[in-house]
Amino acid sequence: MKQVSVGVDIGGTNSAIGVVDENGHVLAKDNIKTPDHGDIKQYIEDLSTAIRNLINNAKLINENIEVLGIGIGAPNGNYYNGTIEYAPNLSFEGIVPLADLLKTRFEDLKVVALTNDANAAAIGEMIYGGAKNMKNFVMFTLGTGVGSGLVVNGDLVYGADGFAGECGHTTLVAGGRLCGCGALGHLEAYCSAPGMKRTAFELIAKYNATDSLLADKSFKELNSKMIYDAAVEGDKVAKEVFELTGHYLGQGIADTVHHLSPEAVFLFGGPTAAGDLIFNPTIKSMEDHLLPIFKDKIKILPSELNAGDAAIVGASALVWKEIE
Amino acid sequence: MKQVSVGVDIGGTNSAIGVVDENGHVLAKDNIKTPDHGDIKQYIEDLSTAIRNLINNAKLINENIEVLGIGIGAPNGNYYNGTIEYAPNLSFEGIVPLADLLKTRFEDLKVVALTNDANAAAIGEMIYGGAKNMKNFVMFTLGTGVGSGLVVNGDLVYGADGFAGECGHTTLVAGGRLCGCGALGHLEAYCSAPGMKRTAFELIAKYNATDSLLADKSFKELNSKMIYDAAVEGDKVAKEVFELTGHYLGQGIADTVHHLSPEAVFLFGGPTAAGDLIFNPTIKSMEDHLLPIFKDKIKILPSELNAGDAAIVGASALVWKEIE
Repeated sequence: MKQVSVGVDIGGTNSAIGVVDENGHVLAKDNIKTPDHGDIKQYIEDLSTAIRNLINNAKLINENIEVLGIGIGAPNGNYYNGTIEYAPNLSFEGIVPLADLLKTRFEDLKVVALTNDANAAAIGEMIYGGAKNMKNFVMFTLGTGVGSGLVVNGDLVYGADGFAGECGHTTLVAGGRLCGCGALGHLEAYCSAPGMKRTAFELIAKYNATDSLLADKSFKELNSKMIYDAAVEGDKVAKEVFELTGHYLGQGIADTVHHLSPEAVFLFGGPTAAGDLIFNPTIKSMEDHLLPIFKDKIKILPSELNAGDAAIVGASALVWKEIE
Repeated sequence: MKQVSVGVDIGGTNSAIGVVDENGHVLAKDNIKTPDHGDIKQYIEDLSTAIRNLINNAKLINENIEVLGIGIGAPNGNYYNGTIEYAPNLSFEGIVPLADLLKTRFEDLKVVALTNDANAAAIGEMIYGGAKNMKNFVMFTLGTGVGSGLVVNGDLVYGADGFAGECGHTTLVAGGRLCGCGALGHLEAYCSAPGMKRTAFELIAKYNATDSLLADKSFKELNSKMIYDAAVEGDKVAKEVFELTGHYLGQGIADTVHHLSPEAVFLFGGPTAAGDLIFNPTIKSMEDHLLPIFKDKIKILPSELNAGDAAIVGASALVWKEIE
């Protein structure tokens, strides 16, 4: 029998589902709408049906598969309780006991577990990716927000209430930019994709940069891909956006290193596709902010998870981690 | 048989030794000089003799004691290797395999273990103090520097190389005050006892405060006890020093909470004796910097370890922790 797990990634618009083998290969995948009307009963019904269908599809290709469990990655996911709690980007209200609701429909499975999306990415890196042989590492996911997953002694850090690993909310600039959470100067306000856009606007204003390739874009239009393209063309503002983003990210990573002394820090998400443009200033800034005992020791590495499938692959990894 | 452990606290000037019972009571204690000439062989000789004598003294009072092991707290102590590595305040050069050197002289004992002083304080809090029933908590020790010990799932976090828990080197103010480690704006440069003195000097300069009770003190003379005394007398500068110290400390603690989601944060050391003067602004600042999901959840508590004996008691706790 070939053992597989099901990964579910719940996003604001779509929920992606995949059947994943123990090497992290996606054998079959599907997508359903995450409802915008908050009807959790109907959603569980639809999700369960989609999972059953997908498992049946995977069995058409290889009838000798055994499904061990379902791993779910969700915003504001709480591992301890299997709940999604007050997720600002989802239409479900309050606390949703999602893992328990799914368990009642999949009583035959050994594991139904849930965690937040960044933790799922970290577990994915540990089970299938570049952190396979690491006991202490950190994952930062850069996207609309900045998430993080912390691994200490081979285990995810969940903390007292299940919400540990919110390194995107480290204060980098006292009294600085407004963060989505309402506080000021957090890392997420500088190093997320929207944070890069804010940096671009600040720099255009600072230099009165009418000649920048980004000067004809409105705040609504501009995105991090455009900043990347402009940087590749040699645009000064765009290049400085990457310098500053790396500077801020390196400062935040240094704070995390001082807490946990990880072997490596993995970066995942859109902005990391810029390669050296983002990695070089990040590494330099981290080193500048570190205690001597940590200098030249900590690797900053790109995630080895395939960007397209990472969310479902990461979620599926939770099943192997639970069984282990 | 009454089981006991020996705690050794190695400081720059003195090494304190104590025989401690499982409730954290010191049954006997002694002090020897930590040499200023770097002769480790002679020091191990002297330390071993002092430990043997102290154990014999304790047995004179109660012959039914069984010594389980020796726990050592030391600056730059590395738990994994049992070494003291490049400690700036000690005269020993390079890497000293202190635990191994002691083991060869105490082969009859089950445990000879070493960690850094702030980690020892955290283990002390967990074994004997206010964190007895906690699995996830953090200890900050405020003194000449700022140390920290992090506990996740009931275990100290040591990280990949044994040096985790350096939260005193979180960057609070980008490009801010010079820290003893050479970097800028670290928590230790603001919240240690010398950091409070620096804040007092900045405020005296800012307000041209000739009427402050602290205005007749030189930088060399001024200490945190004087600042406390002046604050109690209502001195405006001194009171603002505590406000600002709490503000900075709360910002740093919020960063730590975002990493680890602890149940509580314990504060230990001279400046914490000021009670509400330091705790109130610290709590307020932490709350201001926290994500909504963490607000009104995290306790900031004074350490329950007896200040006079805490270092040896904390070191001795390492033995119980190892045996457990």
